Amino acid sequence: MWGGRFAEGPSAIMREINASIPFDKALWRQDIAASKAHVAMLGACGIVSAEDAKTIDAGLDKVAAEYEVDGVPEDWDLEDIHMTTESRLAELIGPVAGRLHTARSRNDQVATDFRLWVRDAMDQADAGLEALQKALVTRAGEHADAIMPGFTHLQTAQPVTLGHHLMAYYEMIRRDRSRFRDARARMNESPLGSAALAGTGFPIDREMTAQALGFDRPTDNSLDAVSDRDFALDYLQAAAQCSVHLSRLAEEFVIWASQPFGFVRMPDTLSTGSSIMPQKKNPDAAELVRGHAGRIVGCATALLVTMKGLPLAYSKDMQDDKPPVFEAANLLSLSIAAMTGMVADATFRTDRMLQAAQLGYATATDLADWLVREANIPFREAHHITGAAVKLAENKGVALEALSLDELQAIDPRVGEGVYKALSVEASVAARASHGGTAPEQVRKRVAAARGELEMDG
Amino acid sequence: MWGGRFAEGPSAIMREINASIPFDKALWRQDIAASKAHVAMLGACGIVSAEDAKTIDAGLDKVAAEYEVDGVPEDWDLEDIHMTTESRLAELIGPVAGRLHTARSRNDQVATDFRLWVRDAMDQADAGLEALQKALVTRAGEHADAIMPGFTHLQTAQPVTLGHHLMAYYEMIRRDRSRFRDARARMNESPLGSAALAGTGFPIDREMTAQALGFDRPTDNSLDAVSDRDFALDYLQAAAQCSVHLSRLAEEFVIWASQPFGFVRMPDTLSTGSSIMPQKKNPDAAELVRGHAGRIVGCATALLVTMKGLPLAYSKDMQDDKPPVFEAANLLSLSIAAMTGMVADATFRTDRMLQAAQLGYATATDLADWLVREANIPFREAHHITGAAVKLAENKGVALEALSLDELQAIDPRVGEGVYKALSVEASVAARASHGGTAPEQVRKRVAAARGELEMDG
Amino acid sequence: MWGGRFAEGPSAIMREINASIPFDKALWRQDIAASKAHVAMLGACGIVSAEDAKTIDAGLDKVAAEYEVDGVPEDWDLEDIHMTTESRLAELIGPVAGRLHTARSRNDQVATDFRLWVRDAMDQADAGLEALQKALVTRAGEHADAIMPGFTHLQTAQPVTLGHHLMAYYEMIRRDRSRFRDARARMNESPLGSAALAGTGFPIDREMTAQALGFDRPTDNSLDAVSDRDFALDYLQAAAQCSVHLSRLAEEFVIWASQPFGFVRMPDTLSTGSSIMPQKKNPDAAELVRGHAGRIVGCATALLVTMKGLPLAYSKDMQDDKPPVFEAANLLSLSIAAMTGMVADATFRTDRMLQAAQLGYATATDLADWLVREANIPFREAHHITGAAVKLAENKGVALEALSLDELQAIDPRVGEGVYKALSVEASVAARASHGGTAPEQVRKRVAAARGELEMDG
Amino acid sequence: MWGGRFAEGPSAIMREINASIPFDKALWRQDIAASKAHVAMLGACGIVSAEDAKTIDAGLDKVAAEYEVDGVPEDWDLEDIHMTTESRLAELIGPVAGRLHTARSRNDQVATDFRLWVRDAMDQADAGLEALQKALVTRAGEHADAIMPGFTHLQTAQPVTLGHHLMAYYEMIRRDRSRFRDARARMNESPLGSAALAGTGFPIDREMTAQALGFDRPTDNSLDAVSDRDFALDYLQAAAQCSVHLSRLAEEFVIWASQPFGFVRMPDTLSTGSSIMPQKKNPDAAELVRGHAGRIVGCATALLVTMKGLPLAYSKDMQDDKPPVFEAANLLSLSIAAMTGMVADATFRTDRMLQAAQLGYATATDLADWLVREANIPFREAHHITGAAVKLAENKGVALEALSLDELQAIDPRVGEGVYKALSVEASVAARASHGGTAPEQVRKRVAAARGELEMDG
Repeated sequence: MWGGRFAEGPSAIMREINASIPFDKALWRQDIAASKAHVAMLGACGIVSAEDAKTIDAGLDKVAAEYEVDGVPEDWDLEDIHMTTESRLAELIGPVAGRLHTARSRNDQVATDFRLWVRDAMDQADAGLEALQKALVTRAGEHADAIMPGFTHLQTAQPVTLGHHLMAYYEMIRRDRSRFRDARARMNESPLGSAALAGTGFPIDREMTAQALGFDRPTDNSLDAVSDRDFALDYLQAAAQCSVHLSRLAEEFVIWASQPFGFVRMPDTLSTGSSIMPQKKNPDAAELVRGHAGRIVGCATALLVTMKGLPLAYSKDMQDDKPPVFEAANLLSLSIAAMTGMVADATFRTDRMLQAAQLGYATATDLADWLVREANIPFREAHHITGAAVKLAENKGVALEALSLDELQAIDPRVGEGVYKALSVEASVAARASHGGTAPEQVRKRVAAARGELEMDG
Repeated sequence: MWGGRFAEGPSAIMREINASIPFDKALWRQDIAASKAHVAMLGACGIVSAEDAKTIDAGLDKVAAEYEVDGVPEDWDLEDIHMTTESRLAELIGPVAGRLHTARSRNDQVATDFRLWVRDAMDQADAGLEALQKALVTRAGEHADAIMPGFTHLQTAQPVTLGHHLMAYYEMIRRDRSRFRDARARMNESPLGSAALAGTGFPIDREMTAQALGFDRPTDNSLDAVSDRDFALDYLQAAAQCSVHLSRLAEEFVIWASQPFGFVRMPDTLSTGSSIMPQKKNPDAAELVRGHAGRIVGCATALLVTMKGLPLAYSKDMQDDKPPVFEAANLLSLSIAAMTGMVADATFRTDRMLQAAQLGYATATDLADWLVREANIPFREAHHITGAAVKLAENKGVALEALSLDELQAIDPRVGEGVYKALSVEASVAARASHGGTAPEQVRKRVAAARGELEMDG
Repeated sequence: MWGGRFAEGPSAIMREINASIPFDKALWRQDIAASKAHVAMLGACGIVSAEDAKTIDAGLDKVAAEYEVDGVPEDWDLEDIHMTTESRLAELIGPVAGRLHTARSRNDQVATDFRLWVRDAMDQADAGLEALQKALVTRAGEHADAIMPGFTHLQTAQPVTLGHHLMAYYEMIRRDRSRFRDARARMNESPLGSAALAGTGFPIDREMTAQALGFDRPTDNSLDAVSDRDFALDYLQAAAQCSVHLSRLAEEFVIWASQPFGFVRMPDTLSTGSSIMPQKKNPDAAELVRGHAGRIVGCATALLVTMKGLPLAYSKDMQDDKPPVFEAANLLSLSIAAMTGMVADATFRTDRMLQAAQLGYATATDLADWLVREANIPFREAHHITGAAVKLAENKGVALEALSLDELQAIDPRVGEGVYKALSVEASVAARASHGGTAPEQVRKRVAAARGELEMDG
Repeated sequence: MWGGRFAEGPSAIMREINASIPFDKALWRQDIAASKAHVAMLGACGIVSAEDAKTIDAGLDKVAAEYEVDGVPEDWDLEDIHMTTESRLAELIGPVAGRLHTARSRNDQVATDFRLWVRDAMDQADAGLEALQKALVTRAGEHADAIMPGFTHLQTAQPVTLGHHLMAYYEMIRRDRSRFRDARARMNESPLGSAALAGTGFPIDREMTAQALGFDRPTDNSLDAVSDRDFALDYLQAAAQCSVHLSRLAEEFVIWASQPFGFVRMPDTLSTGSSIMPQKKNPDAAELVRGHAGRIVGCATALLVTMKGLPLAYSKDMQDDKPPVFEAANLLSLSIAAMTGMVADATFRTDRMLQAAQLGYATATDLADWLVREANIPFREAHHITGAAVKLAENKGVALEALSLDELQAIDPRVGEGVYKALSVEASVAARASHGGTAPEQVRKRVAAARGELEMDG
């Protein structure tokens, strides 16, 4: 009567909705490692015999070797990676395998495995971002003097250097790395030994397993340890921010690669053609990086929603923690690598950039600043005088520096000959030598410091 | 120097980030169907010869037959399902395969394929939800008289019937179905023939392909047609609302299945045990349905974020439309089926429900209402009198109807003998016979109407 | 000891966290209207006397008149608009005011009030979007022939007309309006009379209040009626999609207004200057529309998260339904109006657009299509020939049509003289006359149809 | 013709959509402080005269004094808090006010003000959370021995102590505080002096203003400094995680306060009654905390979406950064305070908890563990034996320890007399004395350590 998917019967549905093995098999290395650490500890503490511990350990190695070669078998009846491994272990070594699960539960086991996986993902993000920083710093060093229009509201605002622009992303990535590292430090505690939720009565040594797995210490509360997914949320939130940063640079590449801008020629290796328009060279990689930000934000949202309002301790909803993390990690890793490639291999058309910077009255602020500095006019008044000069130049269809001194003095007699030195884009960028400013000397200084931070030669 | 994933080189990264075949192979049936409709039209319009059309059509059938048996090969160099199919077609029938892509582009092709897929997903959701409604109506009919505590703020508020409670979900699902159907009607237009973005100069017949694919009409603007993913967003948003509805029922099952409530015994087929606690019977399916709501909300968010701020027409970001939809569709389908199973097979412990309804002074409102109705006291005043009665009963540790008439009249002399008839939970629910109220007669009426809507026998 | 905000003491915190009057006073008109409908029905059904009903009705008019003049007083102790109104009513007409709350509860009262408010918001969105459509259609009609580069991946793809581009947004908005109207139809049911959760024992007439408030019918299940916020979610989701559409047009305006594009001059009235750069004219309105999409997506997410996992019936979490809706409605209304202004008043620089369309080999597809059509070459092969032609033209730094016939025939001898007619941008757009294509005749046809749909003169 | 809100005309719309003063007036203290630091530096560096600097500084104090008394005037024409203040300053001190804006721009000004505001919000969250931790630790200390059922899947799993349960939240809050503190350290850099986007040519001293405002250092890249909202995202993401933690405790309070559980009596000061059901005492504060999590997640999503894909440098979209942060900060602050009140003042009904723990076969794991420990049976086998014992007890309707030794030995002969000592809930919790386990001694140890961390007496 009820048709639809349910016609398969509740048991079939249950097998499918309940099985996490299709995705949590990604945890197999972590699961083996955690089990090995656990059994070594059980042996050391006399909870299982030394011999049993050795048998189990060897059996785990065998299972791992099989996984390495053949992959992890996906049997829904075994539900998850933990049962899959334990079941294979039992086939290999017999009932002694049943001693492995002493003093632990799937709840602390999955918390441990997943934490180890996420820790690796954090380290990988950090390494990938370091590579991206190196690419940024290298290209920024090459282009410390290259002048381009600096935009606000995508309107030409003031001239900046391409090196300075690229280094802005260096700073964002620096914060991203710090975010991943803070998260790593916060999460590097071992839940193993928290058992189902209450700890265990066996005389285990949680320090020992923590150490074996590279954790700084065991967690301090067993209920929290099996219910906590902060580490996954920290990862997802850091990934979301990082992907938003990458999406901004991607957006710039897309705009810069457009014909009207023509600021960049994307590497062939990161572009595609069209199935119908033979002339096209599309910045697909940049667009995908931008699109991936949407999906990573979705992943971060997903886990927050899933965790909201869950009572202690473990609830099965928490099985939905892994797919968003696995997906985000893959998308982020690809995005970082693709962006590294774009930064490293893009051809910046600095001729077009310079040309664009010279249009658009980008040095109007320099005129205003000159009036403040040299003629001691309050900034607000100088701003108005400059506005009049820009309007005149626009009406005449010329650049600001093409106005004659007479014309400028007609607007305000305090304008002097010296102003012309301030009006070239070269002078403009050179002048902005305050800390963090766009002057080539500042950019070079910051590039050098960054190379030091990254331990790059030269 | 840059290490990390990028060490594979940009081309390797590009192959991976660019390839959609790992997920869009799910579209193969739609891709074949759309290509067959397209080539039939090309033939009918004389754009390709009848013979070529026939050859291509037969070739497509062959490709489809191969896919059916062997699955779709996943070659990243062929990028997507469209190139994969066309490439295989060319192997099978030679260069004439190249005529298939006349007067279309991947942009309208993918828009068509994906729309067909989503339309099916909408139909499947509708069918699954109909099954769930039938289960709800059936169980509501069985329990039209069964009294349980109605909660607000999870506090016992007024007695209701279990049938009434279940029918509340019937209404939610009714809205869900209407949402999917509205979305279907809105999206049922064919983008095919919009080509890359501008339409085509070939004398195609878009009505013909639209009709062949079950669309109501062709889309009216080619730029919009290739840039539009509203149909996917509509699906995701309807899915998100539906999943939130299901999460509410799931939450209730989880709470009801707890030992202190004991209102429901979950079907064995939709529960699991514990790896460490032998006595456990966990409502996993309900928890997973609740958790899936988080992921589906994440999917809906993802696509909104991806689409935000994209200029016309097609941008590659839009390739990120499919994974969230595919994921949400799978999660929703499983959630609906699992919930149907729970509703159909749960054992409602109506004895425990009745017992709980009799505690908690659930009929206090009935006392107040009696005072209004029989003693003509303004409701606000009646409310205060009732409050005093509840306080007295609480202090004495007895039910409201266990207070003597003297005691009640000491609070307010207008209370009369007749009030006792109003204070039983049975009288309370029977009295709430206004339209949509919880009275068994109302519930039965609504169940009957719903059975009619669903064309259920009897 | 616990310092912080809690030092104020729990009661102070409770007053603040609990009070909804700071925002729900926006519902005052709806609250008065619903109360008037309710008391008229109570009178008609004999549940209160005709005289009392009249007194209460007059009192409500008085309260409304006060609100109109002085605003709604914000007394946190009265919690919400319902208590605020009833309390003022009691001051004005005495204890008879207490009869108003007969046979209703705050739960159905707020559900009714909020539904009325959201229904109005839907109607306002529809009206605003109609205005935007009119502006789009008007400008599209003016520019049905104006040629611009059509972009995919923000790369010049094929020439299109500006009219066609603007009409793409007409289609999106058409779907938005249909979404709001579907939602309105789905939600237009009256919850009034559902009381706290179970219906009421008073002999009320729910049809009568439904009709008085413009609802199509009363809701069918009292538990659902007080627990349902689908109408608010439907509004937020439609608003989110609409805002994403607007963000796309906003993005285009921002890009088009940049100096390198120069496709549009934004209206002064919707731009701003800079506090420091006198030459700037920033497309602030467009940027704010784009930014608002983010906030509206946030609002839609918020309510989904809040509703997830709530058991029946009313829970106080649902008080958090209003701020996201109020915020989204304000942002959407402003966004629609601002976008209408931009569309209506922007100066499209069609000279620059035409110039851009003539660069970028936008007619390469036309060459390929010509080869298919005239030389009967399979499309895929024609695509390759065209690619070679584009490469040659690029190397020579000339347009496609500037290649000589000899040069083209050297690439493929089947190219003939006639091809040159296909290579102008004018010929290209004129040729794309399939349904929904960019040809001016198609655009004019669609504009005319749209004017009909919108009942615009001429 | 276009009606709707746009009938007001584009200028009116622009005034409204553009004005941020309705919300950014919340920044007035930060704006004054930053301006004072800036002008002091301008004076010290000789960019403005000492006298002018003094005049401006005194003028700013005057403006601040006015704001303190009268609030910030909300004039949309002055757009934002910066112009509002500068305009009032000019009225008070004349044209010299125009010198204040030398060497800065609204872009670095708002970045500085907002950063200061968010830094305060981080500090406030930290302080509020410390108070909550103290409340948790205090109550945990009181209830270190109180036994309650520990739940997984909301099913009775193993007995735990209430103190242990409360301390789980202590750990979550500890991570929340560390998240806010990491964010604070990462963001504590001064953008002031980055000017519009490129730095400034004036010889400013950015270290000086940084120091004056309590920043650790100036930012290193001016383009980044005006385009960066990571600090706001960090705040929102930490707030979202924190609110999800609070929502979990809120959910528990709601469930525990239900009649069937009866584990807690909520403080009257944080509960409300019903307008229609006199017996109700609703856990409104807990529900609102749970609901607020939804809105805070919405706020975090909003800003991510807004920032996605924005090119450098400042875009007006970024004006939409403040409302979500202001809203989240208010909701979070209220949520923390309300939760602190609930924890501090709730009456835990430990009698009901103990009673519930004794039902549900919560010590089944202890039986299994006993079999492993004392009879050297592999855990998996012990698990099966225990399952049989539970089934027998269930069938007999008795507790596990009510089974006779004969009955147990009939299941497995290796069960011995000693097992009974393991089967009481008291023995069970006492046994779980591994690090982080629920044993009272462990809880007391952790409470003591926490008191030390919080510098609480005793």
